[in-house]
Amino acid sequence: MKKKNSPLVGIIMGSDSDLPTMQGALDCLRDFNVNFEIQIVSAHRTPKKMLSYAQNAEKRGLKIIIAGAGGAAHLPGMVAAVTTLPVVGVPVSITKLDGLDALLSIVQMPKGVPVACVAIDNSYNAGLLAIKILSLHNKNLLNKLLLFQSSQAKKVQIANRRLKSKRSSSL
Amino acid sequence: MKKKNSPLVGIIMGSDSDLPTMQGALDCLRDFNVNFEIQIVSAHRTPKKMLSYAQNAEKRGLKIIIAGAGGAAHLPGMVAAVTTLPVVGVPVSITKLDGLDALLSIVQMPKGVPVACVAIDNSYNAGLLAIKILSLHNKNLLNKLLLFQSSQAKKVQIANRRLKSKRSSSL
Amino acid sequence: MKKKNSPLVGIIMGSDSDLPTMQGALDCLRDFNVNFEIQIVSAHRTPKKMLSYAQNAEKRGLKIIIAGAGGAAHLPGMVAAVTTLPVVGVPVSITKLDGLDALLSIVQMPKGVPVACVAIDNSYNAGLLAIKILSLHNKNLLNKLLLFQSSQAKKVQIANRRLKSKRSSSL
Amino acid sequence: MKKKNSPLVGIIMGSDSDLPTMQGALDCLRDFNVNFEIQIVSAHRTPKKMLSYAQNAEKRGLKIIIAGAGGAAHLPGMVAAVTTLPVVGVPVSITKLDGLDALLSIVQMPKGVPVACVAIDNSYNAGLLAIKILSLHNKNLLNKLLLFQSSQAKKVQIANRRLKSKRSSSL
Amino acid sequence: MKKKNSPLVGIIMGSDSDLPTMQGALDCLRDFNVNFEIQIVSAHRTPKKMLSYAQNAEKRGLKIIIAGAGGAAHLPGMVAAVTTLPVVGVPVSITKLDGLDALLSIVQMPKGVPVACVAIDNSYNAGLLAIKILSLHNKNLLNKLLLFQSSQAKKVQIANRRLKSKRSSSL
Amino acid sequence: MKKKNSPLVGIIMGSDSDLPTMQGALDCLRDFNVNFEIQIVSAHRTPKKMLSYAQNAEKRGLKIIIAGAGGAAHLPGMVAAVTTLPVVGVPVSITKLDGLDALLSIVQMPKGVPVACVAIDNSYNAGLLAIKILSLHNKNLLNKLLLFQSSQAKKVQIANRRLKSKRSSSL
Amino acid sequence: MKKKNSPLVGIIMGSDSDLPTMQGALDCLRDFNVNFEIQIVSAHRTPKKMLSYAQNAEKRGLKIIIAGAGGAAHLPGMVAAVTTLPVVGVPVSITKLDGLDALLSIVQMPKGVPVACVAIDNSYNAGLLAIKILSLHNKNLLNKLLLFQSSQAKKVQIANRRLKSKRSSSL
Amino acid sequence: MKKKNSPLVGIIMGSDSDLPTMQGALDCLRDFNVNFEIQIVSAHRTPKKMLSYAQNAEKRGLKIIIAGAGGAAHLPGMVAAVTTLPVVGVPVSITKLDGLDALLSIVQMPKGVPVACVAIDNSYNAGLLAIKILSLHNKNLLNKLLLFQSSQAKKVQIANRRLKSKRSSSL
Repeated sequence: MKKKNSPLVGIIMGSDSDLPTMQGALDCLRDFNVNFEIQIVSAHRTPKKMLSYAQNAEKRGLKIIIAGAGGAAHLPGMVAAVTTLPVVGVPVSITKLDGLDALLSIVQMPKGVPVACVAIDNSYNAGLLAIKILSLHNKNLLNKLLLFQSSQAKKVQIANRRLKSKRSSSL
Repeated sequence: MKKKNSPLVGIIMGSDSDLPTMQGALDCLRDFNVNFEIQIVSAHRTPKKMLSYAQNAEKRGLKIIIAGAGGAAHLPGMVAAVTTLPVVGVPVSITKLDGLDALLSIVQMPKGVPVACVAIDNSYNAGLLAIKILSLHNKNLLNKLLLFQSSQAKKVQIANRRLKSKRSSSL
Repeated sequence: MKKKNSPLVGIIMGSDSDLPTMQGALDCLRDFNVNFEIQIVSAHRTPKKMLSYAQNAEKRGLKIIIAGAGGAAHLPGMVAAVTTLPVVGVPVSITKLDGLDALLSIVQMPKGVPVACVAIDNSYNAGLLAIKILSLHNKNLLNKLLLFQSSQAKKVQIANRRLKSKRSSSL
Repeated sequence: MKKKNSPLVGIIMGSDSDLPTMQGALDCLRDFNVNFEIQIVSAHRTPKKMLSYAQNAEKRGLKIIIAGAGGAAHLPGMVAAVTTLPVVGVPVSITKLDGLDALLSIVQMPKGVPVACVAIDNSYNAGLLAIKILSLHNKNLLNKLLLFQSSQAKKVQIANRRLKSKRSSSL
Repeated sequence: MKKKNSPLVGIIMGSDSDLPTMQGALDCLRDFNVNFEIQIVSAHRTPKKMLSYAQNAEKRGLKIIIAGAGGAAHLPGMVAAVTTLPVVGVPVSITKLDGLDALLSIVQMPKGVPVACVAIDNSYNAGLLAIKILSLHNKNLLNKLLLFQSSQAKKVQIANRRLKSKRSSSL
Repeated sequence: MKKKNSPLVGIIMGSDSDLPTMQGALDCLRDFNVNFEIQIVSAHRTPKKMLSYAQNAEKRGLKIIIAGAGGAAHLPGMVAAVTTLPVVGVPVSITKLDGLDALLSIVQMPKGVPVACVAIDNSYNAGLLAIKILSLHNKNLLNKLLLFQSSQAKKVQIANRRLKSKRSSSL
Repeated sequence: MKKKNSPLVGIIMGSDSDLPTMQGALDCLRDFNVNFEIQIVSAHRTPKKMLSYAQNAEKRGLKIIIAGAGGAAHLPGMVAAVTTLPVVGVPVSITKLDGLDALLSIVQMPKGVPVACVAIDNSYNAGLLAIKILSLHNKNLLNKLLLFQSSQAKKVQIANRRLKSKRSSSL
Repeated sequence: MKKKNSPLVGIIMGSDSDLPTMQGALDCLRDFNVNFEIQIVSAHRTPKKMLSYAQNAEKRGLKIIIAGAGGAAHLPGMVAAVTTLPVVGVPVSITKLDGLDALLSIVQMPKGVPVACVAIDNSYNAGLLAIKILSLHNKNLLNKLLLFQSSQAKKVQIANRRLKSKRSSSL
C-alpha cells in the first residue's frame, strides 16, 4: 500500500496558528531527509477527521505521528487512543499559562494510552524522536543520527573557540 | 422521540474508578428528582462510543451532559466538540497532581468549544448547574431551587445555633 | 415582564478595564443574534448593586449571566449565590499571576453554589455556552449552532488548503 | 452604642467545618483576654447576612473582623468591601489544592479593597494581627504583646536547653 | 515623643528599584492626607538598621509599617518580628517568578509573627489598610474612608455611562 | 551480536526505591511477551556506568530504553544524550513536590536531545510506548496491540454492565 | 581563638520541630567525623540572637553554617546577610505547600547575599556540601569523600545483585 | 600541579546562549580579583567532556565549579556527581516556564549528591558563594568580602539620600 516516497511521519496540529511552533519538526525531518506530511487536524473542530486520520495512519504507511496542540491539548492523546503508531506530543504555549496547561493535558495520559511528550514548544525534538525510532530499522538514518550527535559536540567546540577569542580581546 | 421518564441529564465518566467522585452529581439530581442516566464513556478507550454518545445525546432528549475525568481529562472537551448540548466538566483528582492536571485539561478549551468547568471533585455542583439550566423552563424545578438556596441559608443558621450553645458551655 | 427585544444574556464585569477581554462574549452573542445587556457590576465596589442585579436578573427575563473578573475574582461566585440563573465565569488575566488567581477564585466554588467556568480570557466561549443553553429551547438557535460547528470544521479545511499551496511553493 | 464587654473582634467563617482551623484565632484572643464574637457567615449561602454583618460591624463596636474561608474564598474580600474596619483573611486548606486556591482568592484583591492576608490555616496569626492593631491604643495590651514576644524568645531558649541535654545523652 | 506632624506610617522597601511599585502606598496616604515617612531599609544589606528601625518605630510615633520586597522577601517578616506595630507586606514582582516567590516569602509567616499581606504589587491597598487601621481612632479619616468607598461606587457608575454611550454609537 | 532471546527493552532506574513504581513497565512487557532487562543505573551515583550502558545499548540489541527517576531526574535525559535509541522517561513521585520536579527535569530537554516523557508514575505507559515502537516492525506484536486496544474497550463495557446491575438494585 | 575540637559547622534551625528533618545533616557530619554544633536560632523569635550568632560565627572558628527553616523561611538568608561564611539553606516542608514556600524563600535571594540552597528536606546534602567545602583544605576529609562517592556506586551494585536474585526467583 | 595564576573557579554553562545570564558570575569574580576560567560544557551535547572536566577539576587546582543551565538543567547535578569540589548551580530562565524547570532540575538533587543552588538567573550570587568559600582560607579575600558587605550598606544609604532629595523637591 505504501509508495516509494510516501511519508513516514505525519505532522498534525490543532490550528494553523500552531504552525510557527511546529516548524521545528519540519526542519528536523528535512535535515534528516525523511518524508513527512503535514495537516491541520483538530480534535475539537474536526473530531471525525481526527479519528479517521489516526485509524488510517498505520495502513497508509506512516510510522510516527507528531501532534502539536496548546491549551486543553487533546489532539495527541485522542490520536494515540485510536492508532497503534507511537504518537509524539508537542505542548504549544498559546495561552496565558505558557504551555503548562498543554504540557499537563498531553503528558498526564491514563494507563493504556501513552503519548511520548517532549518539551513545551520543542517540536524539533519531536522530529528527532521520530528519527530515533525510524533509525531502529534504517542504517542510513542511524548514521545520520550519529553524525548529528557528533555535530552537536562540535558546535560546543566552536562556541568555546569563539568564547576564548572574545575573552582574549575583552568580554 | 423523548418518553415521559426519559433522562434529561447524561452523566458520563472515563472510568468506574471515577464513580465515588461523581456520586455527588447523582445525589444532586435525585435531590431534585430529575431523571438522569449514567455510563462509563472513555475518550481514550472507547473514542467511537464517545462520539456517538455525544452526537445522539440531543436527539435522545438529553439536555445536559455532565462529564467527569482525571489526569489528561479529555472526555468533557471531546464530548463538547460534537454535541450542541451544554457540557459540564468535573475535574477528578486521581493523579499525584491532585486534580490540577484535570482542571487545566478541562477548563482551558480553545475558542469555539466551551466546557462549563466546576471545582475539582465537586460533582454535586455539576448537578446543580444542570438544575439551574433545566429550571429556566421548568417552574417546578425553579421553586425547588429557590427552596434549596434558602435551605442553604438555614443550614448556616443551625450551625450558628450549635456554635452558640457549644460556646456557652465551653468550646 | 419581558419585552420582545429584552436581553436574554447579561454580561457583567468588575471593571471597564475587563472590557477588551470580555469583547469576545459580545462578539459571540452578536454572531448568533441574541439580545444581551452589558454592565460594569463590581463585587467589591458596588456589592449592593451586584446583589440586586443578581436577584432581579431572572425576573427581568435574563436566562444566563456571564461574569468576567480578574485577580481575586469574586463576581461570578457572588452573583451565582443569589440567582437561580446559570452563571458563566470568565477568569481575566489582569495580574502578574496571568489569570491563575482568577481561575482558582472562580472555579473552586463550594458545594451548593456552582459557577460554569471557561478558559482564562476566553469570553467567546462564555458566549457560546450561553448559546448552547438557549438553544435547548430555541430551534432557530440550535440550527445556527450546528452551522457554527460545521463552519469550524470548514475553517480547518481552508487552513489545510492554504497550508498545501504554501508548501507546494516553499514553506 | 458599645457596652463594657462588647466584643472588639468579630471572627467569621464560611462554614462550621472551618472551625477547627479557626480555633487558633479564638485561642489567641483568649490568651490576650480580648472580647470577641464568633459566627458562621457565608458569602455564598448567606450573602445578605454577610453584607449586613459587615455594614453594622463598626457601629456595633467591632474594631477588626477576622474572616476564614477555603476554596474560592470570597468571604474576607466581600466583607472588606462593605466595612471601614480592617479585615484579616485566613486561607483555609479545605480543597485538594491545599489552600493555594484560598490564598490567591483572599490575597489578590483589587486596588481599593484591601484584605490583610495571613498564612494558610494560620488563624492564630490573624488573632495576633488583631492584637497588634488593638494595642495601638491600649497600653495594657501593648505590654501583653511585649511579654508575648519575649516569651517567644524564651521558648527558643528552653528548646535549646532540651536539645543540649538530649545531645549530651545521645540524640 | 511624637510631634504634631510626625509620620504615622513608615513605608520601607528593600531597594530603590522597588520605589515605582511602592508609589501606590505614597499616593494613597497623600490621598488621605496622612503623614508618612519613606526609607530604603534592606533586611539583607542593612540588617542592623532594619532591626533598630523596627524596634524604635513604635516609640517614634509610627502606627503602621508598610514593607515592600521582592524575591526572597524577608523584610516584612523580619520587621514584624521586632515591633509591636502591625506590619503590612507588599510582594513586589521583581523576579522571573512574577511575585509568587515574594508572596509566599511574605504571607507564609510562622505562628507568632503575623504579617498583613496584600496582593502582588498592590501597594495602594497597603496604604488603604493603614488608613483602615488609623481610622479606628480618627473620625475624620473614617469619614474620608466612607467617601472613598462611595467614590469607588461612583466610578463604576461613570464607567457604565461611558459604556452605554459607546454602545449606543457602536462598540 | 544479538541472540535469540536477547532483551529488546532496557528498563533502568536511579534507585531500587523506584522499583515499585517501575513495576508497571515490567508488567506491560510481560503482558506482551517482550524480552527486557532491568538494572539500577544511577546518573549521579554511577555516571560512568550510565554512559557505557547508554553507549552500548544499541550494539547489544536493545531497541528502546525506559528510564525512571524522581526529584532532579537526570537519568532519562543523560542516557538520551549518548544513545541513538529512543528513550522513554518516567517521572517518579518520590519527593514532596509529588513528581512535578521529576516531570520538568525529564520533559524540558533542550533542542537536540529528546526524551519521550510519559505521565508521573505511569511506567505501564512507558512499556506500551515501547510496544508501539516495536510493533512497527513486528506483525505479531501489532496484533497483540490491537487486541489490547479492543480489550480496553471491553473493560469499559463490563464496567458499564456492573454499573447497571448495581443501579438496578440501589447505588 | 579556636580550640582543637571546636565545631567547624554550625547547624541552626528555626524551631525544634525542624529537628527530625535536620537530623540528616547531623548524620552526615558524624559519618565524616566532623565537629559541629547545633542550636535553635529563630529569625523571627530571636532576631538579635540570630544576628549575633551569625556575626560571631567566623570568629568562633565555624567554617560553614547550615540553616533549616520552613514556610516563610527567612533564617538562612538573614544569617547569610551578616556573615562572611558560606550558608547552606535547607527548605523544610512544614506547611500545606509542602516546602515550595520554604524553597522559594530560601533560594530566591537578591544579588549580593547568596544562600546555597539544597533540596526540600534534604539536610543530608547540606551536610555533604559542608564536607565538600571543608575537604578543599583537608586531605583526610577529601579521601573520605572519595570513599563515600565510591560507596555510593557500590550500593547501586549491591542493589542490582539483589534485584537479579529476586528476578531469578520471581519478581 | 597548580600555577601561580591558575584559575580557582571554573564557570561552565550548557550553551553560549547562557553567557549573558552567566556574565554576573564573571563580573563578581573580577570584582574580587579571583582567577577563573570559563567554558561551554554541555551535559547533553558533550557528556564525556563534562565528565572529564568534572573529574579533573580538583587536580587542576580548581576549588569551586559554577554551572549554569536552563530547562531540564542537568549540568550542575551531573558535574557534582563526579567531583569532590563544591558545585554551585545557576538556574537559567530560557524556557517558557521562566526558570522554574531549571530551578527544580538543579535544586531537587537526591541524597548523596548536593548542588548549591542560587536564585534563578542570579549568577552574581554564584560568584559570591565562591568568594565566601575561598575566603575561608584567604584573609585578603575575607577583607574584600567585609568591604563588599559594608559597601552594600552604603549603597542603601546613598539611595536613601537620593530618595530624600527627590522627595524634598516633589516625588
